[in-house]
Amino acid sequence: MTDKVQTSALRARSVGPIATFDASSTPGYNGDKTSGTAELAVIGERLASLQEMLYAEGRSGGTRSVLLVLQGMDTAGKGGIVRHVGGLFDPQGLTVAGFGKPTDEELAHDFLWRIRNALPRPGRIGMFDRSHYEDVLPVRVHNVVPESVWRPRFEQINTFEKELTESGVTIVKCLLTVSKDEQRNRLAERLDRPDKYWKYDPNDIDERALWDDYLAAYQDVLDLTDTDAAPWHLIPADRKWFARLSVAQLLLDALESLDLAWPPATFDVEAEKARVASLD
Amino acid sequence: MTDKVQTSALRARSVGPIATFDASSTPGYNGDKTSGTAELAVIGERLASLQEMLYAEGRSGGTRSVLLVLQGMDTAGKGGIVRHVGGLFDPQGLTVAGFGKPTDEELAHDFLWRIRNALPRPGRIGMFDRSHYEDVLPVRVHNVVPESVWRPRFEQINTFEKELTESGVTIVKCLLTVSKDEQRNRLAERLDRPDKYWKYDPNDIDERALWDDYLAAYQDVLDLTDTDAAPWHLIPADRKWFARLSVAQLLLDALESLDLAWPPATFDVEAEKARVASLD
Repeated sequence: MTDKVQTSALRARSVGPIATFDASSTPGYNGDKTSGTAELAVIGERLASLQEMLYAEGRSGGTRSVLLVLQGMDTAGKGGIVRHVGGLFDPQGLTVAGFGKPTDEELAHDFLWRIRNALPRPGRIGMFDRSHYEDVLPVRVHNVVPESVWRPRFEQINTFEKELTESGVTIVKCLLTVSKDEQRNRLAERLDRPDKYWKYDPNDIDERALWDDYLAAYQDVLDLTDTDAAPWHLIPADRKWFARLSVAQLLLDALESLDLAWPPATFDVEAEKARVASLD
Repeated sequence: MTDKVQTSALRARSVGPIATFDASSTPGYNGDKTSGTAELAVIGERLASLQEMLYAEGRSGGTRSVLLVLQGMDTAGKGGIVRHVGGLFDPQGLTVAGFGKPTDEELAHDFLWRIRNALPRPGRIGMFDRSHYEDVLPVRVHNVVPESVWRPRFEQINTFEKELTESGVTIVKCLLTVSKDEQRNRLAERLDRPDKYWKYDPNDIDERALWDDYLAAYQDVLDLTDTDAAPWHLIPADRKWFARLSVAQLLLDALESLDLAWPPATFDVEAEKARVASLD
């Protein structure tokens, strides 16, 4: 018997400043890695089942979808969430998108253009590995655009997300937090294993030197874009198993809040049964 | 200890006409459902590992990808392949696309336009649930366009696929075959379970009436587009476990043929280790 994560304990507005947040904690959860791993498998079954109902709804004219937005420092484990939590779903109903440095074409458009293009279609689960928040995080920290440009984006994001929720998208925003110690360990591991070299980017060390600037930028994100329509969750990610469990539980909460049901038949069931029975 | 599927036995050119193909057979395999399910799990581990190498290669400037093309009669289990074989991969490196009745925008373009738009990016595994072959299958059977239009498509498809393989795409084409008896059973099951109603389409019965026309169209596909660059495989799909195992083994063959290796470091490993060691 396992306990579930109480996701209210992960709500950003209830956990205080990010600078003092303990990335190795397991808020809202009484279990350990063993029970957490077992619980994730249980959640996985339920997620797959609800996803199929959502997909069926989408195929039957429904317009709802679920969008997971993942942000976090380098090495925080965003890719691992996509792999291990995304892997619980049927790939047919899952849309994964990553947002790196924008291309020339993307830069020629409003910063939300590439985001809109990647939104999950009705009935789908979307997972964003980085997102529109990049445009108020590295873009801000590196002064890619002046404050007169990035500052209004907080409000633009809120308007955008409100529009999405009103059109049927349930948004689950997760900021994965990793401690400086754990980040160093993970960077060192990438250098110790040739099968991890491709994940190592010398630039990550330069980014780490801006740690406090990033914390300030994250704090503004939490203060200015944590809305009722699309609240932020702060996910301690030093323990990978807990980060995965937490995000899975948040997605389960989101799917359960939709009160999904199998679509009714759009045909005469008895008449069709008779047709099938008469087939050679 | 399990045996693997000898995929040469699935090569369309070695199995004779589709009209006499036994959809309940398990060619090239000595095992049963129990051993096949165990074997699929073993293959899954290997697929995930090779996928990561392919993904790493793509992230490091490589241009190769793998594309699975799934065709087959209604209820043949294309969606189940995506779910159960696609589910073995990291969703981050997997691109799933389905091709239904074309939209107005798609119809305004050449039939390969929507296909090109959905191709997997470098380093990815792509899965097509239906494909460009729809344009020589239902489009032909229903006379959506005249023969003067669909007939040249066989050669256009061969040219297109040759171009793809030359640009680094390994194409794995699978035609899932289901027997008429098994199709009737699967249609009946969809009517017996309210959680399956959404999968039932009365039109499937009308399509079934055109069974022999479809067989003739499939045979032309096999005769005219089975190329060395992109050969066809005929997958007996009455036994779902065998269809999944076969497709997984074909994908494993494809990935193994790429002789993948972890990308070498593009930085000075010792210098970076020193940088990481000096971090606070």
